[in-house]
Amino acid sequence: MRQVRIAALMGTIITITTDFGLEDAYVGIMKGVILSISPGATIVDLCHGISPQNVLAGALALEAAVECFPAGTIHLAVVDPGVGSHRRAVAVQGNRHLYVGPDNGVLTLALQKDPMVRAVSLTNSHYHRSIVSATFHGRDIFAPVAGYLAAGVDLAELGQPISALVPLPVPMVRRSPSMIEGEVIHVDRFGNLITNVRAEELSVLAQVNDFACLQVEIGSAHIPCISRTYSDVPPGALVAYVGSTDRLEIGVRNGSAARYLGASVGFPVVVRRF
Amino acid sequence: MRQVRIAALMGTIITITTDFGLEDAYVGIMKGVILSISPGATIVDLCHGISPQNVLAGALALEAAVECFPAGTIHLAVVDPGVGSHRRAVAVQGNRHLYVGPDNGVLTLALQKDPMVRAVSLTNSHYHRSIVSATFHGRDIFAPVAGYLAAGVDLAELGQPISALVPLPVPMVRRSPSMIEGEVIHVDRFGNLITNVRAEELSVLAQVNDFACLQVEIGSAHIPCISRTYSDVPPGALVAYVGSTDRLEIGVRNGSAARYLGASVGFPVVVRRF
Amino acid sequence: MRQVRIAALMGTIITITTDFGLEDAYVGIMKGVILSISPGATIVDLCHGISPQNVLAGALALEAAVECFPAGTIHLAVVDPGVGSHRRAVAVQGNRHLYVGPDNGVLTLALQKDPMVRAVSLTNSHYHRSIVSATFHGRDIFAPVAGYLAAGVDLAELGQPISALVPLPVPMVRRSPSMIEGEVIHVDRFGNLITNVRAEELSVLAQVNDFACLQVEIGSAHIPCISRTYSDVPPGALVAYVGSTDRLEIGVRNGSAARYLGASVGFPVVVRRF
Repeated sequence: MRQVRIAALMGTIITITTDFGLEDAYVGIMKGVILSISPGATIVDLCHGISPQNVLAGALALEAAVECFPAGTIHLAVVDPGVGSHRRAVAVQGNRHLYVGPDNGVLTLALQKDPMVRAVSLTNSHYHRSIVSATFHGRDIFAPVAGYLAAGVDLAELGQPISALVPLPVPMVRRSPSMIEGEVIHVDRFGNLITNVRAEELSVLAQVNDFACLQVEIGSAHIPCISRTYSDVPPGALVAYVGSTDRLEIGVRNGSAARYLGASVGFPVVVRRF
Repeated sequence: MRQVRIAALMGTIITITTDFGLEDAYVGIMKGVILSISPGATIVDLCHGISPQNVLAGALALEAAVECFPAGTIHLAVVDPGVGSHRRAVAVQGNRHLYVGPDNGVLTLALQKDPMVRAVSLTNSHYHRSIVSATFHGRDIFAPVAGYLAAGVDLAELGQPISALVPLPVPMVRRSPSMIEGEVIHVDRFGNLITNVRAEELSVLAQVNDFACLQVEIGSAHIPCISRTYSDVPPGALVAYVGSTDRLEIGVRNGSAARYLGASVGFPVVVRRF
Repeated sequence: MRQVRIAALMGTIITITTDFGLEDAYVGIMKGVILSISPGATIVDLCHGISPQNVLAGALALEAAVECFPAGTIHLAVVDPGVGSHRRAVAVQGNRHLYVGPDNGVLTLALQKDPMVRAVSLTNSHYHRSIVSATFHGRDIFAPVAGYLAAGVDLAELGQPISALVPLPVPMVRRSPSMIEGEVIHVDRFGNLITNVRAEELSVLAQVNDFACLQVEIGSAHIPCISRTYSDVPPGALVAYVGSTDRLEIGVRNGSAARYLGASVGFPVVVRRF
């Protein structure tokens, strides 16, 4: 109880990422559970617009958050097609942050940036709601566990230590000295196409840090170079650039590349040096 | 003013439920009004995706919140098709929580779980904004009243005591010894169909606490038993289960039952013992 | 660092308005950046449903917020079609509030209500993230600047003083002694049509404070008077009224005027005295 008090003053941050959307009260209810346990927690919605059961999209949101939240932040992720099955529920301590979620790969990308120090399977039901439903572990297991972590409970209390997590199958690029073949892994609200081609791979291909010598093929379109930002091309034109998560993105200035190209997740992209 | 100070330190929780959506600034503006009066309040969005004027959906969100928020929480609900008419605006003290909203039934289900202790009609304009519009009582009456409650103002100050609220007409089930006839009362983001058939009614029908002996008919589909969770059926299959609010729900594993069945609110469902 | 401490206790409010939507983690990431700098800030989502690149819609949201948030609030607005181009990024001190955003007119309407005292161009990169992307200044420039303002950094520290901002081209009404010609400037979630005709202009036209003598023409519809609120007309009927931002609005009681009239932004409206 004393620990709760301290947390209340310190305002530990808990982010929440789900595929629950905001049409229903599911996310609000999870917040009630957290605040019942840790009244002083600062809760931040990271993203609830993950498309249903899209674990990769959840993983990308968490990856983007790693560098932007202060040390000690707790990330609660519930994109959980296996709820009620035998998939494990886990809590993980990284170098900088803590993570709570299903063991289905949703933490994979974040932990590549914030390496895992220790992890537990959430087997100690003392830290769950007294009755656990079979369909809403967000409310009954994950939210209470995040609340107790914010209130100062040690990770080791929450369950049995585990040594490895289920990895997310992230689509890999194919590389040759003169080209990279990748694909679209996310489409954002603006219709920007985020690909699995990383800036560091572009650097290797370009052999310099300027990507103006790289051309991009996507669908029937040919983009003659990688630009710095949208305004390097005229309104309505396709533009390739390194986006805010250090991945190659394809956009349309003041428009939607997804609509322009009829592209969605899985759409192939090729980068060549000329 | 001193009371406001104390509230600031204590962080009283105010939840907000509306049909305002998040496309506009209406909800954000209500928060500004609340924080102007009670700077230390912790505001939680319960749900703003209630479909316009859908009082039942608002009532279901509040009902689900009752057991998940700490004692003393203030629930502010604005699903208010009668704004500006002669419907009353009310504040209600339940056993555990406080409620502020229009007197149109939006509080009915919550108060079935958290019985009313006292209630007032919000007739004291001292606790409203100085100019009250005829179309946005969320900003001009409900938000300030919630803010003053969080700042320590007693319910009795807010207006005339009243003894009863307008009840919500909730669709009732029809029961016989061998069957229950109910209907869909909510469709969630995943396309899960939430019905008005409660777990306690299923217990009576089943005569045991295991519902595997109950079969469900919905539209042209026949579901042979009530399962525990989604993963009890193959991906893509229909599944009936008791959902997180203790009501019978129909889902499709990793899919949408609403789309699968072409079902929406009002769609009939029958449960039989075999 | 001491300033940060004080801010933490005082809970300076930072509102955020963007066209980022909530499908992606962009807004959540901005919050992480703010809380890293100013852990005690109270962050309020004003609106993220601004349609992409719709600067006028962002300006209207901020205008509505001016009177509803306490003095000292910081409004962070990122509706920024020119990100990465030569448009300036600015911070502005008004009489009551502070503002941070691109210099593209998004602050124009708010500053008409809360006159500008001083402004700076955000040229001091000490208060930006260490690496600034060319596509996400919300994360890399605007959020950190808002965080530092909340932590007590003086506006003058943030960059070069400037004396004027780029104004927003707001559609003007045309007035004659017997009529006002205006247009729809925003459609809200309910399908209400918000016009650029202000209550004060209606007062001049009506010559009295009662607008029952004013008739409204919109599309093929003729509305015989300006009412007080929705419930002054039968369900399903068109209603003209002065909305919560003191502008003429056209709605349908318990329905959508946008759908009823096939109207959207730019649709003409005429008000006549009879």
